[in-house]
Amino acid sequence: MEKPQAATVASEADAGAGDGADGYRIRPLEPGDISKGFCDLLAQLSPSAPLTEDAYRTRFAELARLGADHLVLVAEHAATGRLAAAGAVLVERKFIRRCGAVGHVEDVVVDAAARGRGLGERVVRRLVEHARGRGCYKAILNCAPELKGFYAKVGFQEKNVQMGLYF
Amino acid sequence: MEKPQAATVASEADAGAGDGADGYRIRPLEPGDISKGFCDLLAQLSPSAPLTEDAYRTRFAELARLGADHLVLVAEHAATGRLAAAGAVLVERKFIRRCGAVGHVEDVVVDAAARGRGLGERVVRRLVEHARGRGCYKAILNCAPELKGFYAKVGFQEKNVQMGLYF
Repeated sequence: MEKPQAATVASEADAGAGDGADGYRIRPLEPGDISKGFCDLLAQLSPSAPLTEDAYRTRFAELARLGADHLVLVAEHAATGRLAAAGAVLVERKFIRRCGAVGHVEDVVVDAAARGRGLGERVVRRLVEHARGRGCYKAILNCAPELKGFYAKVGFQEKNVQMGLYF
Repeated sequence: MEKPQAATVASEADAGAGDGADGYRIRPLEPGDISKGFCDLLAQLSPSAPLTEDAYRTRFAELARLGADHLVLVAEHAATGRLAAAGAVLVERKFIRRCGAVGHVEDVVVDAAARGRGLGERVVRRLVEHARGRGCYKAILNCAPELKGFYAKVGFQEKNVQMGLYF
């Protein structure tokens, strides 16, 4: 595998911030993260065959083209280099609200063995701050009813109903 | 005002399709639509001071850079040239679901004077078909509970809870 490149799906402002006393560092996703358990983590969110390295890198490059309007954050355990949590935010630019923007928080997951340490909350808070920094007037997300309490701790309130149509 | 340009926030495949026997044509948003009542329509969704033409055109150009991953559709009354409905879809590209994609249906609105003619349903169906055509595995949206029946007609089912955090 190639050495991870310096480029990340993130703004520079996110890099370096987020070291925790618990040994986990919240940082933007990097090209080399497929070898650090990123797919195992995502499989806990939505079971799926693992990605090939090519598929991962292709998607990484596509998302990088969105610049800071798309950010994936991961929590890396400093001692082992393994990823224990992840989450993403996509900034949607609108015409309403005087050309306002909305941050869509997506795909938040914490490794089953690392739950109860506040990693998910740290990731979500960072995603929300990123959306705020991009000029969004709100951050939104969809969750199962049993997760309402978790997101309420970060400041989210129940607003509407999420509807889905599967192809 | 300049003549509307040929470029639209849409794929070419969407252009031209959608003429209705009721005199409304569903088509992608165009640069000149700010003079056809687009802001009045959006104000019915979220009250706001009208956009300047500069602000509208700047946002239009930003969204055009997303190519077919962002589409705004409008329903134009052929006889009057006024817009009677609008809606948008944003394609979000993910790592989960083997690098799957999701269509976020947003900002669907029908002019108060044009409701009850199925325009909203036509717009939403076209947005959903666009998401499917872009390879999405699902289309999702958030709505007030009283609109669940409307979206169910198009094939949406209630899935989760939408949470929001306003800045």
